[in-house]
Amino acid sequence: MAEGTGRPGAYRKGIERRQQILDHAIDLFAEHGVDGASLRSVADGTGVSHAALRHYFSSRDELLVEAYREHERRHSSPEDPAAGGPVAQMARSADRNRVVPGLVQLYATLTADALQERHPLTREFVQARFSRVRAELADAVALGQREGRIDADLDPADAAALVIAASDGLQVQWLLDPDGVDVRRSLELLERLLPSRRDIGGGGA
Amino acid sequence: MAEGTGRPGAYRKGIERRQQILDHAIDLFAEHGVDGASLRSVADGTGVSHAALRHYFSSRDELLVEAYREHERRHSSPEDPAAGGPVAQMARSADRNRVVPGLVQLYATLTADALQERHPLTREFVQARFSRVRAELADAVALGQREGRIDADLDPADAAALVIAASDGLQVQWLLDPDGVDVRRSLELLERLLPSRRDIGGGGA
Repeated sequence: MAEGTGRPGAYRKGIERRQQILDHAIDLFAEHGVDGASLRSVADGTGVSHAALRHYFSSRDELLVEAYREHERRHSSPEDPAAGGPVAQMARSADRNRVVPGLVQLYATLTADALQERHPLTREFVQARFSRVRAELADAVALGQREGRIDADLDPADAAALVIAASDGLQVQWLLDPDGVDVRRSLELLERLLPSRRDIGGGGA
Repeated sequence: MAEGTGRPGAYRKGIERRQQILDHAIDLFAEHGVDGASLRSVADGTGVSHAALRHYFSSRDELLVEAYREHERRHSSPEDPAAGGPVAQMARSADRNRVVPGLVQLYATLTADALQERHPLTREFVQARFSRVRAELADAVALGQREGRIDADLDPADAAALVIAASDGLQVQWLLDPDGVDVRRSLELLERLLPSRRDIGGGGA
């Protein structure tokens, strides 16, 4: 952080200011969507200059990625991530996202940007995120197989990619047609392939 | 078409020119991606001025939508759309798309744009497309239920949304990690829920 290097407390203040900007950006994205929240409106709302904002986030891509990362950090649950099985995990995550349509939009924007050459930072974030979530869900599938709930001949990696894809795609369809699509009901069809533990509501391992 | 109104053959010539622009745009998107193909490069490649291009496509959104519509028209199969069952339909479509990653990218861009207020034309196209494809697949599921292949207690609309979501989401994951995701294998897991007709390869109804 260049701002105030050497002054006592300046580093901590920089961290706090960065966090204020992120909090405000998330609020703006949630309320007005990604297109409706310019870098300038994020700066204005936190009382920093546009130049100061660029000090904390060197590009719009970086702000979008860090805002989504912060959103996920806030909502990561301390409970056993495998609680309830792989489908229940994605259903909980989809439920959380649908409370704030602007953040489903942010996620869809990050994903589309990641496919374009001009957004290397976004691409790296989205690739790493998919890899991590696929690995976590594949572990949950493998656990279900060891416990005899899930067919042993089903490939955990294939199933993990399928569940994530279904959750992502259903949220997009729902945003475009809230009356025509029921994310949770469609996702629950996957429970027939990948049954959860009985204690799905309990959250215990 | 304003160009040459009143001149004989001008209308037909206008239609041909529009088609040339679309063909070239699809080639550019397929080769360089959506970000890599500016309106200017589309104009340059077809030997029309930027102003003339705007005569045929009043906005970048309109060009993207019409290019994708044309891509789908080219690849719509004359066979019975329900051939092979709902999952097989989406798997064929995903196979076609993966030959041209630029067009998967175009589709992802259209979908992300559709979620933003600033792209009303794209939104209308994507909403209508999802509605139509969901209705077609729901019909295929209902047919499978009448034929006794698919469980009768499964809601056709929920299943249709699920299959489309899975196909869309898997294509995105595959573009970002071609070695880590196998679209067809993951989609085929859905065959366990929604079995195809035996004559899956034959294409007949």
